[in-house]
Amino acid sequence: MSDLQERVVGRKIKRVDALEKVDGRAKFAADVSFDRQVYCALVIAKKAHGILKAIDTSAAMRLPGVEGIFTWKDIPGENQLGDVIKDMPCLVKEGEKIRFFGDVLAVVAAKDKKTAEEAADLVKIEIEELRPVLTIEDALKDEVLVHEKSNIGVSKKIRKGNASEYFVNSKLVFEGEFYAHYQEQAYMETQGVIVVPDIDYGFTVYGTMQCPYYVQGALSHVLGLPMSRIRVIQTETGGAFGGKEDVPSYVAAYAAVASYNLKRPAKLIYSREIDIQITSKRHPVKSYYKVALEGKKIKAMQIEAYMDMGAYATLTPIVMFRTLVHAAGAYEIENVDVDVCAVYTNKVPPGAFRGFGSPQVLFAVESMLDDIAFQMGFDPMEFREINTLKKGSRTSTDHLLLHSVGAPETLSRVKKASNWQRLVAETEQFNKGNEDFKRGVGVSHIFYGVSLGAGGQALDKSGAHVLINKDGSVEVRIGGTEMGQGAKTVIAIMAAEELGQSIERILVHQPDTAFVPDSGPTVASRTTIYSGNAVRSACIALREKLIPVFREITGSSSAGVKFGGGSVYDEDGKRMRFDEIVEEAYKRNVKLFDTGWYETPKLSFDMENGIGEAYVTYSYASQVVQVEVDLATGSTKVLKAFTAHDVGKSVNPEGVMGQIQGGFAQGMGYAIYEDLKHRDGRIISDNFNTYIIPTVHEVPPELVIDVVEDPFPEGPYGAKGIGEPSLMPVPAAVANAVSMAIGKRVRRIPVTPEYVLSLIEGNLSNIV
Amino acid sequence: MSDLQERVVGRKIKRVDALEKVDGRAKFAADVSFDRQVYCALVIAKKAHGILKAIDTSAAMRLPGVEGIFTWKDIPGENQLGDVIKDMPCLVKEGEKIRFFGDVLAVVAAKDKKTAEEAADLVKIEIEELRPVLTIEDALKDEVLVHEKSNIGVSKKIRKGNASEYFVNSKLVFEGEFYAHYQEQAYMETQGVIVVPDIDYGFTVYGTMQCPYYVQGALSHVLGLPMSRIRVIQTETGGAFGGKEDVPSYVAAYAAVASYNLKRPAKLIYSREIDIQITSKRHPVKSYYKVALEGKKIKAMQIEAYMDMGAYATLTPIVMFRTLVHAAGAYEIENVDVDVCAVYTNKVPPGAFRGFGSPQVLFAVESMLDDIAFQMGFDPMEFREINTLKKGSRTSTDHLLLHSVGAPETLSRVKKASNWQRLVAETEQFNKGNEDFKRGVGVSHIFYGVSLGAGGQALDKSGAHVLINKDGSVEVRIGGTEMGQGAKTVIAIMAAEELGQSIERILVHQPDTAFVPDSGPTVASRTTIYSGNAVRSACIALREKLIPVFREITGSSSAGVKFGGGSVYDEDGKRMRFDEIVEEAYKRNVKLFDTGWYETPKLSFDMENGIGEAYVTYSYASQVVQVEVDLATGSTKVLKAFTAHDVGKSVNPEGVMGQIQGGFAQGMGYAIYEDLKHRDGRIISDNFNTYIIPTVHEVPPELVIDVVEDPFPEGPYGAKGIGEPSLMPVPAAVANAVSMAIGKRVRRIPVTPEYVLSLIEGNLSNIV
Repeated sequence: MSDLQERVVGRKIKRVDALEKVDGRAKFAADVSFDRQVYCALVIAKKAHGILKAIDTSAAMRLPGVEGIFTWKDIPGENQLGDVIKDMPCLVKEGEKIRFFGDVLAVVAAKDKKTAEEAADLVKIEIEELRPVLTIEDALKDEVLVHEKSNIGVSKKIRKGNASEYFVNSKLVFEGEFYAHYQEQAYMETQGVIVVPDIDYGFTVYGTMQCPYYVQGALSHVLGLPMSRIRVIQTETGGAFGGKEDVPSYVAAYAAVASYNLKRPAKLIYSREIDIQITSKRHPVKSYYKVALEGKKIKAMQIEAYMDMGAYATLTPIVMFRTLVHAAGAYEIENVDVDVCAVYTNKVPPGAFRGFGSPQVLFAVESMLDDIAFQMGFDPMEFREINTLKKGSRTSTDHLLLHSVGAPETLSRVKKASNWQRLVAETEQFNKGNEDFKRGVGVSHIFYGVSLGAGGQALDKSGAHVLINKDGSVEVRIGGTEMGQGAKTVIAIMAAEELGQSIERILVHQPDTAFVPDSGPTVASRTTIYSGNAVRSACIALREKLIPVFREITGSSSAGVKFGGGSVYDEDGKRMRFDEIVEEAYKRNVKLFDTGWYETPKLSFDMENGIGEAYVTYSYASQVVQVEVDLATGSTKVLKAFTAHDVGKSVNPEGVMGQIQGGFAQGMGYAIYEDLKHRDGRIISDNFNTYIIPTVHEVPPELVIDVVEDPFPEGPYGAKGIGEPSLMPVPAAVANAVSMAIGKRVRRIPVTPEYVLSLIEGNLSNIV
Repeated sequence: MSDLQERVVGRKIKRVDALEKVDGRAKFAADVSFDRQVYCALVIAKKAHGILKAIDTSAAMRLPGVEGIFTWKDIPGENQLGDVIKDMPCLVKEGEKIRFFGDVLAVVAAKDKKTAEEAADLVKIEIEELRPVLTIEDALKDEVLVHEKSNIGVSKKIRKGNASEYFVNSKLVFEGEFYAHYQEQAYMETQGVIVVPDIDYGFTVYGTMQCPYYVQGALSHVLGLPMSRIRVIQTETGGAFGGKEDVPSYVAAYAAVASYNLKRPAKLIYSREIDIQITSKRHPVKSYYKVALEGKKIKAMQIEAYMDMGAYATLTPIVMFRTLVHAAGAYEIENVDVDVCAVYTNKVPPGAFRGFGSPQVLFAVESMLDDIAFQMGFDPMEFREINTLKKGSRTSTDHLLLHSVGAPETLSRVKKASNWQRLVAETEQFNKGNEDFKRGVGVSHIFYGVSLGAGGQALDKSGAHVLINKDGSVEVRIGGTEMGQGAKTVIAIMAAEELGQSIERILVHQPDTAFVPDSGPTVASRTTIYSGNAVRSACIALREKLIPVFREITGSSSAGVKFGGGSVYDEDGKRMRFDEIVEEAYKRNVKLFDTGWYETPKLSFDMENGIGEAYVTYSYASQVVQVEVDLATGSTKVLKAFTAHDVGKSVNPEGVMGQIQGGFAQGMGYAIYEDLKHRDGRIISDNFNTYIIPTVHEVPPELVIDVVEDPFPEGPYGAKGIGEPSLMPVPAAVANAVSMAIGKRVRRIPVTPEYVLSLIEGNLSNIV
């Protein structure tokens, strides 16, 4: 009976949604259409800063095929978007301010996409232009205001120990200034929704998104309807990376205004240009580090970080919490001051992106440490080993770490896998013999607070709905979403593990707000833990309903009734097929559906001083990268990489590998390729011919992945998050490697050829 | 604080779905359309009996706009419909039998309805005709067989006491032969579905129906897919009356074959002619009664009843159980033999219809009793009072009645309301002075087994899914359906009663199989009890989640935290709005959704001898009707009616009144107007110009309704069913009144003018 006892968790499982995505059956937002639907196009400001004087739709309305053009006057509820700070209109009102190029002024609805776009071009906009605020430095001056009050919108701090005092008496003090530029999420599928008047007299939204509950809330607000009249169903989502956290609420709101007024389905799919031009990115962050050592031990750190939050706050106040907590890195430091502040500029509002405000400062702190090691002649690996967080350490927010601290182990694994000392020696050897190409080796070491943490406790929960049909097929619905990261597969694995039904008979459906109430956002690498625990609890409740049926039919009195391999069985050899026992249970009117719920353990945190339990747990990663720089062109190539990640438990090993591979590639893009260019507040690299992202050809063939499993007691089977930590060590590892290669400190990402050449030439004036 | 304490149950409430149905927003199946949908039309046999030799679709396929024509060869799963006995093909196979005019041979899909219908006419069918079996008498001869074995398909019996022996020694023996004809459900909305390939790679069915789970099961079977791939959503349903119990499974199966093969949405809406021609009706029943008295006490009864089940068994084996149990009426009789059998004929298969096999025999037994009273000179009211079931009685299946037996009270109420003795005297007086018009008064008294009973225990359960949104709006989903009977309103009332939220903030959604697993059919007057109890249990669980939040915020330590009037409050005057407490609960990550379930109490019943607990409880009704017959034309008019119903508890008094009014009208149609005519197995009265149903003008202005509330302990707030009992006393009361008017015993319904004239003239040869 060994086939029965085999576990599903931790086994190599084929991705449950692979086939439909490969054979083309998968329905993304653009593939979903409804009878009598209209196609929408947006009229955007196309000026960075000004006063909207007039909108003239008359010429556009005359275009045959136009069904309606909607402005702020057509909004039945509140003309307001943005959850945290109410600073963003849905459609800018005449007489009010234009704050960035992508401000939306009107929604055109027409019989087809082409007509809608043509009509949008025919809408005449009159704007009284104002001087735009385009840099962090300019914003800090507060000479021109983006909103009514100061450009300095929001700030947060950590005060641990007494860093100021420590620096006064310290001799070993190092300083550094770092800049991390925008990064575009570059998901394969652009933003898109269809808003449909539904059979229950409300509206159902189908669309690509991470956070259906945000969309539900936004539409309830904009349409002035109770939440029971707004239903949100996520369609297959072709990548998100944070870029579909809050943005789909806006996209859906525009389409909803059209649908509400026309009483017809309204479809709005962004072109790549509109998507890059007007939707969120990773925040540019400028940071200043000051570090004091005692021997090889970091004793104090002072950090100032400035985030460019563009024209509206959107998610910045939340993103900033993560910047704050991660700024001092994965190290035990007695004295830490961190100050983070965000400023308004007349540019696109950045928001969520894999890592959520932490990659920028992790790049900075890891570059700073590398610089110190370089200056002091320390082995950078050993320097990190000495200072890393370990069991019993306290983080920069003074969070005492009692379990699941795989940080020392990830360092040890990556050191061993890369054969660190020999790799450094070989690289130095190579450089001695080469003039045109130089190689470098870089190391980085990061931590990542899993889930929403102290700043988002009120959202940190998740529900599940599990139903077993009469034929034994199982239907699972969760509050979290599948956006390509593998949520459906990991959830199916957990349901199969708990119910014993074979995974092929378990269907994890597209999320739908009607089944499961607000389960928070699908962000922060929290789905495996939160939705996973919710599904487990529902499945365990269902299992308890089946056990008495098994006992009644088989006469089993064994204490250990087990579920596995498509069967229910006991230790005495009694066995029934899962489908068979379900059929019997139905005959007995047994209730075979249930809900599950998981809420976050309460965190104690002092928001004023940034002290306490910042997150429920942390994931850790260490990475070694070898690069080669072409000194003539300045271009950098990653030759090999070794990366080790503490994920608590690898529930779906294939999925974990996929995340790490994908995160590595995206981190590499952030580190060396992706360079968003602005001109007068307009993004000029608004497609992939000018905004270059890495392809599979840029990923080094030697990408060695190691997984550490230091179990998290609250996680399902011990699991912690992996979605975001996969990307986070890459930028610093690459930058440090480039620094070694060219013998100059890299202090900015992306490390573009221009930047490398400027560093070599000592002329940085052309680099933003 | 009296506004808070007011209960919702039992109050006059506006129907929750009234507005949308009045202003035209309600979306019925025909109103729902999907992108790229095809319209279907059926190719039917148009012969009552034969062998299908060939189907030639070539000419039809050449018609422009035809997208596909599908026959038995295109069915991916099983070519079989019909749940109880597997005797019905989905699409008849070449070489096999045609068994009735409406057998479906092919499904045509085209760009529009007109093209589909034109193409259906172009499909060439070759049939080798056989002599059809068209009457119960012919079927019983078994000379021509409809199926391979005998035409006598199924039978059931009751053997209580020893009736045969009693008759041997009895002097007072009466006999009668009765016939109840077909009745068409005549719902306003014809059958219709749209089957749509959905975003979860399965099929979603939208349609008018009573039993979404039946449709789910049928499609899983016909398409060969797991149930998790079939989802069924009921659209607003314009009447059903049993006619949408099993039939929508067939309609959906035809459309599904088209949708599956074309990978497009397929819509199939029946014309009235097709609907009347090929879908179920009330069974014709011929019955023979023999009754023995001792004084005014009924001592023994022997009944034989023959049901015409048409070409296929469909639901007949289940309908028959109700015929069996109700055949001896609402009386306590020591010795009862009942034999019911159903025969195959080459006609449309009858099935479920309000009353489900009981109205036919209740008409018969009540006519028989009236005949006896007439012959013996008993007061028919007193005769019923003496024999009625009461607390402590045993039914004809020997079911001991311990509670909620309002039968004597309904008799007493109706006797008083009608002023029985005076009404009879006045009527006699009228007749003395009139030659052309004669009046009559009739009484009837019935009982009705609520819910599915011993024959359907494995289906007798119901689930609910209740979710409270962050804004306090409440969403309720149940396994039962709203088909016009008021289910949504009664469910909203119960949710409002238990949660205390105001009813306007509670939304009862259209049923969807994905939310709630198989909850049995919406039939048998069971929704208030079963779905109601399920909703209550979910709401009570949610209430328990809110109480700690209330205590935490208000500091209440009162034992009695109450919910009502949109608030939560305690006895010490502490109070919070429901919306406010929900918002606070969300902030605390409280789980605010849950599932509810109610399963039937186990019934003990001996199927072999028809002895035991046939149903969980019984509803009762008594009725007095006065009619006037035009002796020249034979036409009957109901002048006034008095009806009293024991409903346990009237949760929604407006709904109960509506049911009784509607049931009366439909019962009156059955009694005197509705006459289904066949010719050679084809229905010739296939629209409402030839099949006459009563309008509001035929309903007597004096329809006096009285409600008895003898609470059923298992029912929510004591409620029992009312949907079907509302119709059941009418036919006998009318027939008995006509008998009095014309001085001849009516032994057949409908009491058409032709039948009345034949009775007066003593020539019945022209009457079926």
